[in-house]
Order: sequence, then structure tokens, then C-alpha cells
Amino acid sequence: MTEFQFNVSATDGLARRGTIRMPRGEIRTPAFMPVGTAATVKAMYLDQVRDLGSDIILGNTYHLMLRPGAERVARLGGLHEFARWPYPILTDSGGFQVMSLASLRKMSEEGVTFRSHVDGSVHELTPERSIEIQGLLDSDIQMQLDECIRLPAERPEVERAMELSLRWAERCAIAFGNQPGKAMFGIVQGGDVVDLRVRSAERLRAMELKGYAVGGLAVGEPQEVMLRILEETVPVMPVEKPRYLMGVGTPDDLLQSIARGIDMFDCVMPTRAGRHGLAFTRHGRINLRNARHAEDATPLDEHSDCPASRDYARAYLHHLVRTEETLGAMLLTWNNLAYYQTLMAGARQAIETERFGDFVAETTEGWAKGEEARGAFRR
Amino acid sequence: MTEFQFNVSATDGLARRGTIRMPRGEIRTPAFMPVGTAATVKAMYLDQVRDLGSDIILGNTYHLMLRPGAERVARLGGLHEFARWPYPILTDSGGFQVMSLASLRKMSEEGVTFRSHVDGSVHELTPERSIEIQGLLDSDIQMQLDECIRLPAERPEVERAMELSLRWAERCAIAFGNQPGKAMFGIVQGGDVVDLRVRSAERLRAMELKGYAVGGLAVGEPQEVMLRILEETVPVMPVEKPRYLMGVGTPDDLLQSIARGIDMFDCVMPTRAGRHGLAFTRHGRINLRNARHAEDATPLDEHSDCPASRDYARAYLHHLVRTEETLGAMLLTWNNLAYYQTLMAGARQAIETERFGDFVAETTEGWAKGEEARGAFRR
Repeated sequence: MTEFQFNVSATDGLARRGTIRMPRGEIRTPAFMPVGTAATVKAMYLDQVRDLGSDIILGNTYHLMLRPGAERVARLGGLHEFARWPYPILTDSGGFQVMSLASLRKMSEEGVTFRSHVDGSVHELTPERSIEIQGLLDSDIQMQLDECIRLPAERPEVERAMELSLRWAERCAIAFGNQPGKAMFGIVQGGDVVDLRVRSAERLRAMELKGYAVGGLAVGEPQEVMLRILEETVPVMPVEKPRYLMGVGTPDDLLQSIARGIDMFDCVMPTRAGRHGLAFTRHGRINLRNARHAEDATPLDEHSDCPASRDYARAYLHHLVRTEETLGAMLLTWNNLAYYQTLMAGARQAIETERFGDFVAETTEGWAKGEEARGAFRR
Repeated sequence: MTEFQFNVSATDGLARRGTIRMPRGEIRTPAFMPVGTAATVKAMYLDQVRDLGSDIILGNTYHLMLRPGAERVARLGGLHEFARWPYPILTDSGGFQVMSLASLRKMSEEGVTFRSHVDGSVHELTPERSIEIQGLLDSDIQMQLDECIRLPAERPEVERAMELSLRWAERCAIAFGNQPGKAMFGIVQGGDVVDLRVRSAERLRAMELKGYAVGGLAVGEPQEVMLRILEETVPVMPVEKPRYLMGVGTPDDLLQSIARGIDMFDCVMPTRAGRHGLAFTRHGRINLRNARHAEDATPLDEHSDCPASRDYARAYLHHLVRTEETLGAMLLTWNNLAYYQTLMAGARQAIETERFGDFVAETTEGWAKGEEARGAFRR
């Protein structure tokens, strides 16, 4: 296997069951990519991340270019060798974190200069430099540099940023060149303006990239807005290419987006929530900080294969969260990634058997019944 | 096996190779007990702690009585069930942390009242309450309440605290009563005053407790002072009972103390140092924060059985420490506990084969050669 390939093996409505094949391994879609910000999925050993069924993780170009630096990672054998993850890695372009973390940003046609949030040093990110950095990291799926704007924004501003992102996509495609075993994905922008989203998708489609992302969503808008944008945008995206919804989302966001034709996701939610005492389970979200768990000897999910979900009393997790013990973050992150990957495995199987609608309904019902359902299991 | 037993199977000079047998398992001595302060050995899964060869861990009465509370732990099935560690647990009496962490301490013959460092609530610890708490935790080896004083101190103050601790030892022994499968250890006090140490040890010996600790050391005094106290004190301690040096120490402290007849140790050093970027290895201590590790692709110890020591580049560990990533603490704590337990296993084997002196010399030489030795391995 030396070329990047994507095949859809089953569909159920707009939902798709596919496989990306790359030299470093296969990615079963729909896929959830755990976020490995700074060459580590926070509070996890990568062996655990793999064992949960993760085919690919995400690395953040912004964080890695600042620390330890892309050239240093390259000298150390690339990100896979550095972090001990020999499977596919997707890197973002750095654009999103420049917007959300860096200070003194200065945008131009050429690119963006900014100050590091770590030490105040000045850096420049152009489409060419972003691709160069992602190449130094040896990333398998690289993302075009785009301009992410804050919503709400006026149409002229949304349009300007979208058009700039299209020109940057072309420059990224040229910089990326011909790398058969790797991919560079374009990113559909256009905020919440449907005709701009459609134009962005059409123009990117004409560039014949290997995959396409939908960016600029999950930035605080209601879920219905996000889903409406997907409903208008996905049909314009090529059916034969993987579709990646960036930065999304809750378990429900994932199922609703899969139902609208999305194949790939990444989100800090399961890992970040795990560090803040929140567990995602079949029974919905559970805030372990809550005093009602203080003497609850039951685990998060007695039927889970994950030790973190199955073996530890909620009372113990509550204690670890309250005392801010590292093991609390370790166990809840583990539980959350296990739940996300179990959810994706369930979605893939449901699509294969053409019962994705039932799967969504049953899963949603489980969340809604919540603690009541859990009580029923125990009796 | 229903009774607490201690047998010495081999000696080499004053160094002893023994076994404590208890209902929850055997403890091979010399033993290092990882510190599980608040029902967790920080940044470790207890499965890992066990797999490293730990026969027993330590829990802190002070921390556990404040959070989650001893009665709560009891209702949840005891500390073993709560933390998922079915093997022996030793608990301290709470006295040391009352001195080091709590505020507004008020000592009396009866006991000590103090304010919690967590929420300012007022608590009382008497000899009887300390033993009651340790019983609620279901601790296997319980420690008498003692008064720990700061050194340097005048002889009258040292003597007063030592005599009070002796009276508290008697009260603890009565409160503990007859529990064949468990043990309550007395604690030799007396600061750096040899004749007070000897008196303390003799009086405790007369109480016929199941084991004896040396307390009040490793509080900042030079190693030679500590070793001199051990040389004077250990001969007064019963040969047929385990001897536990509390809160000690560096790898060298452990070897030097084993050579003077100590059987058991606990210390936060390997875990705390791991959270601060410091690794203990065959080649001595390595500060991963140091810039010279930034591009070093070699692991901490290529010959270790521990994945944390063997599989991760120092450059990666350096990156994790610099970015304050949780995985850095996880990997370095794992490495450090692995090294401590490997050291203890080596000491036990050396005593069995009557080459403990050679073992100490070789080990010390390895530390001294440090990076030079490491270079030699790589060529």
C-alpha cells in the first residue's frame, strides 16, 4: 500500500462506512481522531489510545512549531518516532490556534505573523511554511492554511476570509506537490452563509484535492446552524473523497454529522472534559465533581471493556476529581476516549447493517434515560 | 496465613533479607513502599505499581481523614477496595503531616488539634483516634501516633516529645488491641540525641510490638547524622521484628540504611521527583528539564524492563517536562518507581548471595560514572 486511497464500502442514507488506506495504516470511517496537541494525547499513554481503536491521531502544528519546533522534530525522526505513534497522523495547519491563542496577529495576503503565547517570540505562518512544517513533522494528512474568523461576522468579512482561504489552498496544493502516500486536504469556509459555503466547496472541488474538511464550525453556534450548513455543503463535496468536520464535537454532534455524510472528526472534548471531571457514557454525561457521587460504589459503565469505565467506583473518581489527583484525569480521559471510540465503532457497524437510524435513536434514548437506566441495570 | 509474621531468611553483615507474611500478601524485605498519599500513587495506575514489584504501598492518614474521610472510606469497603489495591497497605499515623501541613496546631497530653490545610476545618487526632482511623481504612500495618518536632531542637524539647510519643505508643497499643493478621508499629524518636534514641528504642521494645520504625529522620539533616543515629539505634531494636525507616530516601540512603539493618522504607522522592522532571537511573540522576536533552534520542535506560525507561527518547521526555504535559509526570514517575524497585530487588538478591557490599559498590560506581557510562553502552 503506497498510495492514499479512500473507499466507501457501505452507505445508509447519507451516512457512509469507508476506509482510508495509507502507508502507515488504515483509517476506518466514520473515524474519531483523538487530539494529540503537543505530541501527546493528554494524560494518556499512546498505547492506550491505540488499544481503544484509534486509527489516527491529530497533532497541532501551532503547538508543535513552537515547542519542540518542527525542525527539531524532523531531526529526531519525525512526529511518529518522537511520540511513538507509528500509525497515521493528521496535522492541522496552525491557523485555528493562531486565531485562538496567539497575540498581535497580523494578517496579509502572504500569511500571518503572530507572537507565541508561550514566550512572546514572533513567528510567521504562510501557506508554504505551514505545509513545510507539516512535512517536517512527517504528517500523513496535512491541512491547508486557512483564515478562521470569529462569528458572528458580516458577509463581506466572511467572504473575504473565505476567498483568501481559497487562494491559500491553491498555494498549499502547490507546496505539497505530488506525495502519493500522503494527503493534503482543503477546508471549506464561509461561516454561516450558505452560498459562500457552496462557492468555497465548489472551488475546492475543482482543485481535486485528496480530501475535504468543513472548517469554521463548532465555534459556539447552535447545533442546528451547524447541521444546516452541513446539509447545504456536503452535497457539493465530492462523493469519492473523505469529508472531515473539524473540531466537532459532542457525541450527539458526531452522530448527527455522520447522518449528514461526514467521515472524520477531531475534538478536544473527550480529553479536556476528562481533565475537568466530566465523563461521557452510554447513560449521558456524568459530572464526577457532583457530591451525589461521593459514596456511589458503582462504576461508570459495568458493561464497558475499558478498565477506567468498568472497574473504578464513582466514589473513587469523585475523590480523585475533588483532590485534583492526576489519576482522575487519567481515568476520565481514558473513559471518555473509550466511549467516543465505542460510539464510532457502533456507528460503523450500524451503517454496514443499514440500521444507522435505529442506532442513533437507541443511543440518544440511552443518554436521555441517564441515571434511571443505570439503576435499571443494577437491579 | 492469618497471622502477621516476619522471618529473616538471609543476612549479609547487618543487612537482612526477610519476608513479612500477612493475610493480604507477602512483603519481601528490604522493601520500598511507594507513597499513595490520597488513595493514589500520583500519576500511576496501581496495576503499574504492582507490576514493578511493589508488595505494599503507604497511605497517609492525615490526607485520607480530611478527604474523603475515614468513615466514608469504611462505608465504601475500606482503602483496598476504594483504591483497588488488594495487597498490604501501611498507613502512617497522621502526626507528621499535622506538623508539616496543618495550621494552628495545639498539642496536649491528650493529642493534637489542628486546622485542615484544605478547608480550615478543625480536627483532633489522639492516639486512639489515629488507630480508629487506620482501622476504618482497614490498614494492614498501622503506625503509632507520635510527636514529630523540627530539628534542630534543644535536648529538653527532644526528650519531652520522645517521652510523649512513648506514652502515646502505649495508648495506641491498647487501642489497637489484638489483631493477629495486622500489625501496629512503634516509632523510635529522640531527634539527633543518641541516648534519647536508645532510651526510646528500649522502652518500645519492652512493649513487644510487631514492628518498629525509626522516625524523625530525613528531615534535612546530613546523611552522616542519619546513619550515625541508625548505627546507635538499630542494635537496640529487636532482631526478630521488621525495622522501618520512615520517609527515607535517596537510592544511596536506602542502600546505606539497608547496610545498617533497615528492612522497610517509604519516600515521596521517586514520585515527587518524577513530577518535577527528575529521573533516577543506574547512571545517576538526570534532570530532563536540562536543555542538553533537547535532541537526545536515547532512552533513560535501554536495558530496563520498564517501558518508560526503555522506550522513550530523552528528547521527548524533555519536551513533555518543558511543556508541563501530564505524560511527562506519568513516564518519569513510572521510571523512578521502576528504578527504586529494581534497586530493592537487587539488594535482596545481593544479600541472599552474600555480596551486598559488592552490590553497593557497583551501584554507587554506576551513579558516579553517570553519562560517561551511558555513552559507553551506546558505542
